[in-house]
Amino acid sequence: MFHPSDHPHRRYNPLTEEWVLVSPHRAKRPWQGQQETADTEQKPSYDPSCYLCPSNTRINGEKNPAYTQSYVFTNDFSALLPDTPEFADHSNPLFQSHSVRGVSRVICFSPDHAKTLPELSQDEIAAVIALWQDECRELGKKYQWVQIFENKGAVMGCSNPHPHGQIWASDFLPNLPHKAHIAQQKYFAQHQRAMLLDYAQAELQKRERIVCESDFFVALVPYWAAWPFEILLLPKIAVQRMTDLNNEQAQDLAGCLKILTTKYDNLFQTSFPYSMGFHGAPFDGENHPEWQLHAHFYPPLLRSATVRKFMVGYEMLAESQRDLTPEQAAERLAALSEIHYKSAK
Amino acid sequence: MFHPSDHPHRRYNPLTEEWVLVSPHRAKRPWQGQQETADTEQKPSYDPSCYLCPSNTRINGEKNPAYTQSYVFTNDFSALLPDTPEFADHSNPLFQSHSVRGVSRVICFSPDHAKTLPELSQDEIAAVIALWQDECRELGKKYQWVQIFENKGAVMGCSNPHPHGQIWASDFLPNLPHKAHIAQQKYFAQHQRAMLLDYAQAELQKRERIVCESDFFVALVPYWAAWPFEILLLPKIAVQRMTDLNNEQAQDLAGCLKILTTKYDNLFQTSFPYSMGFHGAPFDGENHPEWQLHAHFYPPLLRSATVRKFMVGYEMLAESQRDLTPEQAAERLAALSEIHYKSAK
Ligand SMILES: O=P(O)(O)O[C@H]1O[C@H](CO)[C@@H](O)[C@H](O)[C@H]1O
Ligand SMILES: O=P(O)(O)O[C@H]1O[C@H](CO)[C@@H](O)[C@H](O)[C@H]1O
Repeated sequence: MFHPSDHPHRRYNPLTEEWVLVSPHRAKRPWQGQQETADTEQKPSYDPSCYLCPSNTRINGEKNPAYTQSYVFTNDFSALLPDTPEFADHSNPLFQSHSVRGVSRVICFSPDHAKTLPELSQDEIAAVIALWQDECRELGKKYQWVQIFENKGAVMGCSNPHPHGQIWASDFLPNLPHKAHIAQQKYFAQHQRAMLLDYAQAELQKRERIVCESDFFVALVPYWAAWPFEILLLPKIAVQRMTDLNNEQAQDLAGCLKILTTKYDNLFQTSFPYSMGFHGAPFDGENHPEWQLHAHFYPPLLRSATVRKFMVGYEMLAESQRDLTPEQAAERLAALSEIHYKSAK
Repeated sequence: MFHPSDHPHRRYNPLTEEWVLVSPHRAKRPWQGQQETADTEQKPSYDPSCYLCPSNTRINGEKNPAYTQSYVFTNDFSALLPDTPEFADHSNPLFQSHSVRGVSRVICFSPDHAKTLPELSQDEIAAVIALWQDECRELGKKYQWVQIFENKGAVMGCSNPHPHGQIWASDFLPNLPHKAHIAQQKYFAQHQRAMLLDYAQAELQKRERIVCESDFFVALVPYWAAWPFEILLLPKIAVQRMTDLNNEQAQDLAGCLKILTTKYDNLFQTSFPYSMGFHGAPFDGENHPEWQLHAHFYPPLLRSATVRKFMVGYEMLAESQRDLTPEQAAERLAALSEIHYKSAK
């Protein structure tokens, strides 16, 4: 008889409308490939050569202020620019392009070079959320999409260990938000309910994939997770956008983020690398009852601080594949302490 | 005025129906992040500890034959299995899954542990193609999709430097082939011509993105390339599947593969890492005039043998982004010698 924790199967991701291949029997294969460098080095609280530390001078000659909490500035090497000349060519279906406008910003989470999100206090994380809200409010006036994200760890392409994230706003809806938009619209048209609110409620009843929860949020390994320890962070109540959170809810989100990222660090007793980011309703001036604000966490580590999952070959050419089941991943994360291993010592 | 080599823009990928963000002005940003280990080590032709070398014993106790050309065997840790019990549940749109059947094989390209594809002779590569054809013929009887691929280099998750690829066959059409299938069907319905044949012909006329060509094939950086030096290998004539190539065409493909992979190694004078794989019409017993056989090469290196492009944060959450234009990448690849840097010394 078929059993999902023993037999190869596919699961459906209703946000991307794609499938993921689950091969739970494969977790036992040996690994002789690349070893990552575990991030265990103790960093100084201030690094004179870091271009994100307070009062330091950046590559373009600008000097950071002596900031004491969090600090946001426009990326010196922005992928998006506000003044691109307009252009669009859709005449040939095989050679379509259009110009884009936008802005890329860097947001320092703390003046302390040595800290990461789980090592900040709940209030300090709440201050980061307040800044995300400010940025969304401002950039959302001009751009329909405001992508908040963080690349954490050298293995995730992060070029500076100073705790920071990025915000890229654009006058277009990028591929993945576009897919999430369409999927949530379809679901709403069929069920007259927000897909991700239904999903959060179903998971809260099943209780098979929950990692942690707070008053207003729940963090879980989604049924369709592709990365080994992927997490989807969902509100328990209807929230369309980052800017809709009131103070109490933002404070609650800060607590939930602190616990979630602490568990991540505790899993392999290392500063856990990931890319994370928020998706919410586009800033198009419309009401979007089909949309729920949510955050995706995509962490690459698989078995230890040095052995990662590679999304290569089959994954790049055919479809995503995972070895352990989402239920197994959730069980491991849920069992971990909410106290960071560094402060528990 | 808008100029594609100066200004941020998006280009459309007609195979995936997704966009890619091109930020050509961003190529100048400095890099202080992770450095890859360049693969410059001289390997022995036979490694007693390699489980892919001839006559060696694998982890499961089986002994490889003393093979002299190429050799294929079923993966000891297959992600897909032929005898999974049947199961499908689509009752809840948010929790859909179904069991899958398939097989994963490993294909050694050469008995020589020290060689890679570009270092094999054209005849030796032709022997690999003949094996790919045999496997497709056999597996295509039972499975609708036969994914041929190669992960090359530790940075691409390859756990053994012995020259080898993989073949994963499945009773389902994975996400990406499924998208390519739908896209080619739509185009054919509208234009009564194969999309990728039209595309190859248009590129052969424009001659802006061509890397190299042979009698029957052309290798180019597609207009919508996401990876810095991505290549799409296309037939110049109608070919639906790997199994449709006659001897002359297979021999010609071998020559084209040798030149393409030689140029890759010459770019940064290193064994160039990539994931590559073939897509062709599904093995469903039908004629698919809309389909063209093609190969994708996804190489991660960006600026040197040690600095790669990371598809993280924005790319995982919003959409793929590239710094140099496809035209700039093609120009650099086209200008490189067709003689491998190691044999030129
Ligand atoms: O099968 P291998 O070479 O051990 O494993 C490699 O290729 C597979 C197929 O692309 C991936 O699923 C693995 O993550 C990767 O490490
Ligand atoms: O902007 P950074 O941190 O220099 O760069 C990093 O994040 C970007 C956004 O995800 C990616 O495009 C880059 O490939 C990555 O190295």
